[in-house]
Amino acid sequence: MPWHRKHLLTIEELKRAEIEQILATAAAFRRVLDRKVKKVPALRGKTIVNLFLEPSTRTRISFEMAAKFLSADVISFDASASSTTKGETLRDTAQNIQALNADMIVLRHAASGSPLYLSKVLGIPVVNAGDGAHEHPTQALLDVFTMREKLGDLKGRKVVILGDILFSRVARSNIHALTKLGADVTIVGPSTLVPHWFESMGVRVSHNLRTALADADVVMLLRIQHERQGVSHFPSLGEYTSMFGLNYTRASWVKPDAIIMHPGPINRGVEIDSDIADSPRSVILQQVTNGIAVRMAVLYLCAGGQPEQVLTPVE
Amino acid sequence: MPWHRKHLLTIEELKRAEIEQILATAAAFRRVLDRKVKKVPALRGKTIVNLFLEPSTRTRISFEMAAKFLSADVISFDASASSTTKGETLRDTAQNIQALNADMIVLRHAASGSPLYLSKVLGIPVVNAGDGAHEHPTQALLDVFTMREKLGDLKGRKVVILGDILFSRVARSNIHALTKLGADVTIVGPSTLVPHWFESMGVRVSHNLRTALADADVVMLLRIQHERQGVSHFPSLGEYTSMFGLNYTRASWVKPDAIIMHPGPINRGVEIDSDIADSPRSVILQQVTNGIAVRMAVLYLCAGGQPEQVLTPVE
Amino acid sequence: MPWHRKHLLTIEELKRAEIEQILATAAAFRRVLDRKVKKVPALRGKTIVNLFLEPSTRTRISFEMAAKFLSADVISFDASASSTTKGETLRDTAQNIQALNADMIVLRHAASGSPLYLSKVLGIPVVNAGDGAHEHPTQALLDVFTMREKLGDLKGRKVVILGDILFSRVARSNIHALTKLGADVTIVGPSTLVPHWFESMGVRVSHNLRTALADADVVMLLRIQHERQGVSHFPSLGEYTSMFGLNYTRASWVKPDAIIMHPGPINRGVEIDSDIADSPRSVILQQVTNGIAVRMAVLYLCAGGQPEQVLTPVE
Repeated sequence: MPWHRKHLLTIEELKRAEIEQILATAAAFRRVLDRKVKKVPALRGKTIVNLFLEPSTRTRISFEMAAKFLSADVISFDASASSTTKGETLRDTAQNIQALNADMIVLRHAASGSPLYLSKVLGIPVVNAGDGAHEHPTQALLDVFTMREKLGDLKGRKVVILGDILFSRVARSNIHALTKLGADVTIVGPSTLVPHWFESMGVRVSHNLRTALADADVVMLLRIQHERQGVSHFPSLGEYTSMFGLNYTRASWVKPDAIIMHPGPINRGVEIDSDIADSPRSVILQQVTNGIAVRMAVLYLCAGGQPEQVLTPVE
Repeated sequence: MPWHRKHLLTIEELKRAEIEQILATAAAFRRVLDRKVKKVPALRGKTIVNLFLEPSTRTRISFEMAAKFLSADVISFDASASSTTKGETLRDTAQNIQALNADMIVLRHAASGSPLYLSKVLGIPVVNAGDGAHEHPTQALLDVFTMREKLGDLKGRKVVILGDILFSRVARSNIHALTKLGADVTIVGPSTLVPHWFESMGVRVSHNLRTALADADVVMLLRIQHERQGVSHFPSLGEYTSMFGLNYTRASWVKPDAIIMHPGPINRGVEIDSDIADSPRSVILQQVTNGIAVRMAVLYLCAGGQPEQVLTPVE
Repeated sequence: MPWHRKHLLTIEELKRAEIEQILATAAAFRRVLDRKVKKVPALRGKTIVNLFLEPSTRTRISFEMAAKFLSADVISFDASASSTTKGETLRDTAQNIQALNADMIVLRHAASGSPLYLSKVLGIPVVNAGDGAHEHPTQALLDVFTMREKLGDLKGRKVVILGDILFSRVARSNIHALTKLGADVTIVGPSTLVPHWFESMGVRVSHNLRTALADADVVMLLRIQHERQGVSHFPSLGEYTSMFGLNYTRASWVKPDAIIMHPGPINRGVEIDSDIADSPRSVILQQVTNGIAVRMAVLYLCAGGQPEQVLTPVE
């Protein structure tokens, strides 16, 4: 089946087969990276603009690495540049970037739906690198890539997502990806952050951590997003840690062969204790490395590449 | 005629024939860009430093794109780095950059004349990317390039420049370029921003917008530079918009085949209404694209390239 | 003798023969730079991350230039990104960078010993670009490289280091390098900034500027580090200048063929007067240029290159 999408905006809109295509393409690129033969000529002569209007060094560098390994030029236009865009609409900024001969835009923006909007007003591909509390599709793709690498087929696998689900685009994108791939998802956390209406997304909602962890194959932690919560919200950081932080005792409730994931950056001693973060069950750093391969796949496919034609490296 | 200038400091000092050479070279590069065969090897192995000591993401990225399409390496040293240059003179900063093996400096600086000064103390080419309220030569070159693309020869063509002329380096550079190319320039705006002494530059000064617009072939708007005006100056933003903002009614005074230009970023609803900015008469985004070709020409010529030898693309 | 170090953490730990190897490799790269044939393919396909958690445009750009001349890709992660690393440990940040497929980390950090720490927790080479008041090894290497270029063998040569020794990582690294190479080092300045216990490092301590300068072959000035001193410390800037600033009179005490050095950025009129900084005896800008060759050598050797195999340039 040929790949036909020009944009990657959400996981929600992807068919299961499309997710499989991205993962297969990423696996091919992962093998290239492993051989330390780092560049493929796929996007030589193309310019990718990282338009990051919310700060994010980590995701930006991952996209930058991915673009360079595809031999593209990358120009970053980040939040510190926002003074320059003062008084200018997002559409004008993006149309200017397109007029500057950019071949693709990777957008991080605080407004949900902004990548969709840009995809309608621009003629070039738009990749969503996180839009508000809506979606973060490449994060979910790298997460399921990492789970499959460790566990094989995800059908029937039990995935627990623990933390601030309500405000998390990572959780939203993962719920879409995991349910499409047949996994059995439970979201856990304090009731203020894990409301019952999430059940409509096809997941189980639990406020009992011990029960949820007991049969998990994957425990995915989320970063507590202080900045997205109002000042007087419950729970406080300390309350969260005391009730839901993954410490040694709680980690002992998890099956020995389960894996522990986190999108980073981790808050040691808050949502995860150091001995758990650094344990062999933690695949946090593998997630980071897989992120490059997954983003290479997304950039490559949205630029018009086909899954079966991943180019062989040249240098 | 061979090109012989090492620096591009002002439009004022250029002969008409030199402007023609830059425009012809830019036209050759524009054809390269159009074919989406994006790189020429002209500056391979050269390093261009963008020394932007006033913030400007837009112009900086345009120069960066131009340099990359010429296969040069680019290092940007921007305003956020100014803490590092604290206590260091501009000359010391620039001599350090030269000692770091830079082959060319593109300078944006708040002080009028700073590029001229650097050209005297450095041994490498200096390109002015905007100096105070003095000149912004590459902006004027891309503007006349765009006018010629739309209108052909500019001799006798009527160009209206509307807005904050007094503080505008864009206006100054355009006045020099347009008068050298034989255009008939009228500057319009409130009398506090469009003083009569500009007539000494060979332009007509008008405070009557309707009359000025009526026979214009080109209406060039300028961004209102709030930050350059004192706090109590007249007019305020609201006053400016109500008297001179290009809205639907006022745009109807302009001939149907005239073009509307703006150096960006535009303030929608201030100096220009959205329906005018997005109308077919607006060439604002073409200006942006042409800017890359014009800057490629300037970098290429100042690095010692010759107009008739524009290299064929290699990748 | 083959080069065997993976990291460059301090000058203190280097043997004299290792310093010689770096200088010889740098000399080979310096000849490449001189021919304006700027790139060697040594690190093609490698990615070097500049992790600069203290601001430093100058050193960062020098490392960036060095990496580019070796054909490496460079990604800079600078202090303005520190908001992104908020709440994340240095180790987590660095392990993430390693997981992003970086091949080498160049670290600037306010904490003494942080490069050593990273070298123990990462699997990739770590180069110290300045750690607190501890060491700045590449600065010392470029300084001795420049002295040897001007003076030949440093054995028995008299080097005066003048200024804020107590807080200076540049002074510490230079003292180690110079004493290993057999130079005779005197440190001079106000007693609050040049304490007598430095004698244990094998240098002479003097508070008499005239005597110290009289037989110097090299006068190395240091930048006064206002920001590292407490508010009520002695001397103030003005007091320092009046007592120790290198002005015309004091420079006349120095032998005519001695050289004057400064790591930059210079404070004209504070630690050095303009006529001295710009005199033929000043080698300040040569230091900057040599810095690229020395950093090329360090990156090349730590990446596994061998001194005798410096690759010939390709473009």
